[in-house]
Amino acid sequence: MTRNELFNQIKKKNSYLCVGLDTDVNKIPRHLLDFKDPIFEFNKQIIDATHDLCIAYKPNIAFYEALGPKGWESLHKTVEYIPKECFTIADAKRGDIGNTSSLYARAFFKEMNFDSITVAPYMGEDSVTPFLEFKDKWVILLAHTSNTGSNDFQLLRSDTGNLLYEEVILRSQKWGTPDNLMYVVGATRADKMEGIRKLAPDHFFLVPGIGAQGGSLEDISRAGLNNECGLIVNSARAIIYASADQDFAAEARRETMKVQVEMKALLNRFA
Amino acid sequence: MTRNELFNQIKKKNSYLCVGLDTDVNKIPRHLLDFKDPIFEFNKQIIDATHDLCIAYKPNIAFYEALGPKGWESLHKTVEYIPKECFTIADAKRGDIGNTSSLYARAFFKEMNFDSITVAPYMGEDSVTPFLEFKDKWVILLAHTSNTGSNDFQLLRSDTGNLLYEEVILRSQKWGTPDNLMYVVGATRADKMEGIRKLAPDHFFLVPGIGAQGGSLEDISRAGLNNECGLIVNSARAIIYASADQDFAAEARRETMKVQVEMKALLNRFA
Repeated sequence: MTRNELFNQIKKKNSYLCVGLDTDVNKIPRHLLDFKDPIFEFNKQIIDATHDLCIAYKPNIAFYEALGPKGWESLHKTVEYIPKECFTIADAKRGDIGNTSSLYARAFFKEMNFDSITVAPYMGEDSVTPFLEFKDKWVILLAHTSNTGSNDFQLLRSDTGNLLYEEVILRSQKWGTPDNLMYVVGATRADKMEGIRKLAPDHFFLVPGIGAQGGSLEDISRAGLNNECGLIVNSARAIIYASADQDFAAEARRETMKVQVEMKALLNRFA
Repeated sequence: MTRNELFNQIKKKNSYLCVGLDTDVNKIPRHLLDFKDPIFEFNKQIIDATHDLCIAYKPNIAFYEALGPKGWESLHKTVEYIPKECFTIADAKRGDIGNTSSLYARAFFKEMNFDSITVAPYMGEDSVTPFLEFKDKWVILLAHTSNTGSNDFQLLRSDTGNLLYEEVILRSQKWGTPDNLMYVVGATRADKMEGIRKLAPDHFFLVPGIGAQGGSLEDISRAGLNNECGLIVNSARAIIYASADQDFAAEARRETMKVQVEMKALLNRFA
């Protein structure tokens, strides 16, 4: 998907919401266990109920990998089922030496046709660039994550004067462009979002920290929106587990709509 | 596997060699393509030919993931086939927020019964500790990798006075012990190995950089061996692709034996 197609979708739907498909077989409604592939059935119903209100879906790959080969089948079917207009994110946090990153890129971009993949920066340029070689595909590079451990290394100040996550954002802009590179920016503090927006004015940020992880949508939107939106805000548990009963899809839609209505207002105010 | 069991195996076999199962369907001998699962058949014959000379096997997960669900089946069968006395390493470079890392840990330690997994440190403590909660299982944390991109961030000097990879080694020693935590240490320079050995005198290091990636076994052994060996040195392509013909397993054995003979001498001199 091109940046233009992504932005057009955002304008059409008045939304920059990503629904996180962190689908856990222990948390889905019990009646789905009668289906041949309960994970896919759950995802399918969530997608049916939300795809006109959100612009992206992000399966967290660990949830599928934990189930072995049949989890990968559920994942394949899910990606195929997502409407083509929606942006798809493989939340895989891969990153390895060049020839290995190329294999991961092939797995997620060709074998499964994801639009994007999250990538860890620790191994540097040649671990990231193989993912940037695919036309209309995206790297979403971990910059500042939303977990408590993000303080351990990402906030180390280096002798360049920058924090590690700032170095990641600055150096990686030589590897990719706003047309194929985004950043993961945790939403726990809006003042930090402001600083990061200055470092990368035109890049999209994937923001994982609203919903169950906390973080104010208004604060991060004020600080992070740019004139082509520039934000994809993820919510997983608050939406997909809004109800544990038969009505889970309807309740997921209700939660999604609440966020979309707020996003529409925020786009009008700040974008 | 416990540290003691690992060390006993090293003493028994006079070897600290790990064979990297970076099995690529485009590189394996053509006659194997007639088998139902050519990847597994290749691995099986390599394992049969080498397991008395090496102490570990390291499938690079990307090679299997790139093949979709059937790749995961080949991987499952391979791990099951490896003799129990050999240490198994899932070279997966995972690392995510706590509940997600727990799922990856379950996938590799329970679903597939690997002894260890390589983990990326960028997201900090809570992304690593879920892997440390499994009895007799190991985290192999990326410290200093052997690729050129390792210079981008791992060599940044922080205001603590340490390089980033040194910070990773120092801080992570509060999370795990020499009984459940190893480090990935690229072998391209022996002087660096000496410095790293001082930072972590008792920990095992997984060294990826001999064979096709270059790096002198003697130099890194002199600098890195400790009194319980402390090194697991990986070689992949130089062994598994020693021949592209029918004799690939015999040639793999011949290459493995060359390394094992050298390792035996090095253990006598330096350990």
